[in-house]
Amino acid sequence: MSQDRVIIFDTTLRDGEQSPGASMTREEKLRIAKALEKLRVDVIEAGFAIASPGDFEAVKGIADTIQDSTICSLARAVDADIDRAAEALVNANSGRIHTFIATSPIHMEHKLRLHPDQVIEQAVRAIKRARNLCADVEFSCEDGGRSEIDFLCRIIEQAIDAGARTINIPDTVGYAIPHQFAETIRQVIERVPNADKAIFSVHCHNDLGLAVANSLAAVTAGARQVECTINGLGERAGNASLEEIVMAIKTRQDVLGVHTGIVTEHILSTSRLVSSITGFPVQPNKAIVGANAFAHESGIHQDGVLKHRETYEIMSAQSVGWHANKLSLGKLSGRNAFRTRLQELGIELSDQDELNAAFARFKELADKKHEIFDEDLQALVSDTVTDMVERMRLVFLDVRSRTGETPMATLTLEVDGVEQQATASGSGPVDAAFRAVEQIANSGANLQLYSVNAITEGTDSQGEVTVRLEKAGRIVNGNGADTDIVIASAKAYINALNLMHSGALKAHPQVEGI
Amino acid sequence: MSQDRVIIFDTTLRDGEQSPGASMTREEKLRIAKALEKLRVDVIEAGFAIASPGDFEAVKGIADTIQDSTICSLARAVDADIDRAAEALVNANSGRIHTFIATSPIHMEHKLRLHPDQVIEQAVRAIKRARNLCADVEFSCEDGGRSEIDFLCRIIEQAIDAGARTINIPDTVGYAIPHQFAETIRQVIERVPNADKAIFSVHCHNDLGLAVANSLAAVTAGARQVECTINGLGERAGNASLEEIVMAIKTRQDVLGVHTGIVTEHILSTSRLVSSITGFPVQPNKAIVGANAFAHESGIHQDGVLKHRETYEIMSAQSVGWHANKLSLGKLSGRNAFRTRLQELGIELSDQDELNAAFARFKELADKKHEIFDEDLQALVSDTVTDMVERMRLVFLDVRSRTGETPMATLTLEVDGVEQQATASGSGPVDAAFRAVEQIANSGANLQLYSVNAITEGTDSQGEVTVRLEKAGRIVNGNGADTDIVIASAKAYINALNLMHSGALKAHPQVEGI
Repeated sequence: MSQDRVIIFDTTLRDGEQSPGASMTREEKLRIAKALEKLRVDVIEAGFAIASPGDFEAVKGIADTIQDSTICSLARAVDADIDRAAEALVNANSGRIHTFIATSPIHMEHKLRLHPDQVIEQAVRAIKRARNLCADVEFSCEDGGRSEIDFLCRIIEQAIDAGARTINIPDTVGYAIPHQFAETIRQVIERVPNADKAIFSVHCHNDLGLAVANSLAAVTAGARQVECTINGLGERAGNASLEEIVMAIKTRQDVLGVHTGIVTEHILSTSRLVSSITGFPVQPNKAIVGANAFAHESGIHQDGVLKHRETYEIMSAQSVGWHANKLSLGKLSGRNAFRTRLQELGIELSDQDELNAAFARFKELADKKHEIFDEDLQALVSDTVTDMVERMRLVFLDVRSRTGETPMATLTLEVDGVEQQATASGSGPVDAAFRAVEQIANSGANLQLYSVNAITEGTDSQGEVTVRLEKAGRIVNGNGADTDIVIASAKAYINALNLMHSGALKAHPQVEGI
Repeated sequence: MSQDRVIIFDTTLRDGEQSPGASMTREEKLRIAKALEKLRVDVIEAGFAIASPGDFEAVKGIADTIQDSTICSLARAVDADIDRAAEALVNANSGRIHTFIATSPIHMEHKLRLHPDQVIEQAVRAIKRARNLCADVEFSCEDGGRSEIDFLCRIIEQAIDAGARTINIPDTVGYAIPHQFAETIRQVIERVPNADKAIFSVHCHNDLGLAVANSLAAVTAGARQVECTINGLGERAGNASLEEIVMAIKTRQDVLGVHTGIVTEHILSTSRLVSSITGFPVQPNKAIVGANAFAHESGIHQDGVLKHRETYEIMSAQSVGWHANKLSLGKLSGRNAFRTRLQELGIELSDQDELNAAFARFKELADKKHEIFDEDLQALVSDTVTDMVERMRLVFLDVRSRTGETPMATLTLEVDGVEQQATASGSGPVDAAFRAVEQIANSGANLQLYSVNAITEGTDSQGEVTVRLEKAGRIVNGNGADTDIVIASAKAYINALNLMHSGALKAHPQVEGI
């Protein structure tokens, strides 16, 4: 690999999934992994194999399927974690074990309760064990941004000797300032005697809004791998966002002097896929992928753009996938056109039954809605593609909004094949519908979030509703789409209850990240 | 002012408002200005006085009212703009005229079509005229990030000689990379002979996700004013976000060595106010003010936080206003408690009638909803406080959601004092309600955006709906709140039509920004 190539390591499926409420099913993770492969991400961190059986299955499923990207599993520097990661990666075309231990004084003292020498010893043992199971091993110094540079150099030298090919220095708490972080990376690379035997990597968090800048500063100091996520998803304020890193490197090649292998035209569709699956909206003023990112409001700006594109545009909207053919299908589109468009969107249905179910929903939607956009298709398929058994299904719902009256919902659910009816009142039609569902389900779950996205423009657009439920520390996100927002809400609520029941989702991973 | 004090210049009301769809009424701008004053923002850019009569009135209203912050109006480097800015600022306790002209080769050639010497001449004339009208004048080199450094030094020296006290170097197109931008600022300050007579400022856009980093890099190079916006609102991908700038400066005082005068505890409430007024959501993984910014998901992270707060937290949630007393009022709260809480939230009602109307709505809400949170109050008051005459008012709405049936809405509107009925079907209850409104209104407007926020948690939470309508290039955002999401939607649609009709909003400003 050339000296000026930056490896893009995407951790949407691991660190991104650690965002409260961003848990995904195995099938959803696989869909995102396929999109990342198409984007030509170099390394996909698919999960934390030991965290739960669900996480293990997700990593394994992705490792079994993806061919072009390296698939990575996180593992603490302990035997059980490393063995489990290797087991999940056994069929990978190209696999990587990513092991880590904290190296900052505050973490070693308060969290690990280990002496620095013990930390080095544990890291070396873990790396050696990983190398016996997998040729490609990455080692991370957790909380590297607050670690002492002398200690960093010591542990990194020994990690490379033990066989780590990639050395990652994360700013776990999002504390670094670019020029100072660059200086740390520069010193480490200069001072570690065997630095030439490894690729240096960074993993930055965005607590002060500096994750992208810190990553790029590290690249100028010699780092050649950046860990990032789609839409900057991740714990707390998230990670460095892949789309910003990639487009900054591409747009400012003159200053940064490096490049990536990313096919930037797929950025927007990948962003939308991740947003739709996690239920995390992208704010309009988000760089690159926000709805306004390429919109010019003020008159003379528009005039300037018309006169000479470069007066106000430093990159083209097309280069990241905007203005792709938006209108996709209509009422008269046939099954072949439907299947072809799904393939173009990177959505694969596993069998004829799924295709039939999706096509039936498509026809139903096309009766209600004039134009069917890509976003509609993605929502429609999210409803269809699922690897869990639906315990509960909405058969009938009737609820009325009338000014001055308390809404009353009547509904029929099929639960384990048996139809049940319920009626409930609420402060609004959505509340009434949820209460009616709960009369039957009695889940004991708490509603943590209710969000609605109009998927496309126009008054006949579909509403996509996300409902986040929590029970005993376990969080699930249910989704539902319909041109009727109240019915979409009921579907989302029922979907969340099904997820809660099915165990298709991992429980909260009782493990740490970096 | 001390050497290490960074002046915070907020342009939410000017550059922020230039976001497509973020237009605000005069009254909304005044509410935000009051919140910014409470936050102790040094300079509030209130608008662009010449852009429209509405903009002029907004700048004047803010200049007439705000006492503790300097109030600024933008003005191109032409006589009419400067005179109009001065007129709007006439009653300001502390006023500033901010004039600008483009200085990059690409802008001078393609947009201004002027020779560089002509650009200097026009700038000097404008600054002198402004100084005759206002003691405090700021000059901006539009597209400074792509300007030639020799030319920047020349024009800045003459601008300072002409009387500019603040020299702003904007990265208008969001093209800069921190270390290189810092170098530009450093060189300019070193090379301009009279640099000590002015404060240097930066204004960074976020197209590559680097606005905050570029601003901080400029501060390390000697800039002592940062132009920013709440939530990073602004054209395209927005501006540097105030909350990230301020908290980075506060958290990393050890590296940056400067401070601001911001009362950080008011950051979150200001962020929510701006989000609620503009209808622009803040994504959960937004630094500082996102819902997840201080949430720790993974188990051992939580464990780490419990063991020692600083293991994963670099600043406290309290320091930016999280975990303020969330529960505020209930069904039994009286008028005094209600008024007091509104005052604490910085909401001032202009007379007894408005207070009565708001209190009546509060009682109505408290009947439906167990706990009333601050967000509920803000939504409720947004419904009440308005400086426009309501042409159209919802009297009655009845619409039914029933699986398998086409929703039909029946409604009564009072239009100019006369009640009118309409019935319409739609693809969902919201669509049907909108179509029924349009049967009466016949507005010819296009629906550009429909968004729903659940204002507080729980199944009985209110829905706050934003409807963005566009007609002949003019954009308005209507808001409506109700525990019934369908009724909230109808209210928002009617509110948007009233705004469209009232002319309370400016037309699209046919002027540029920086």
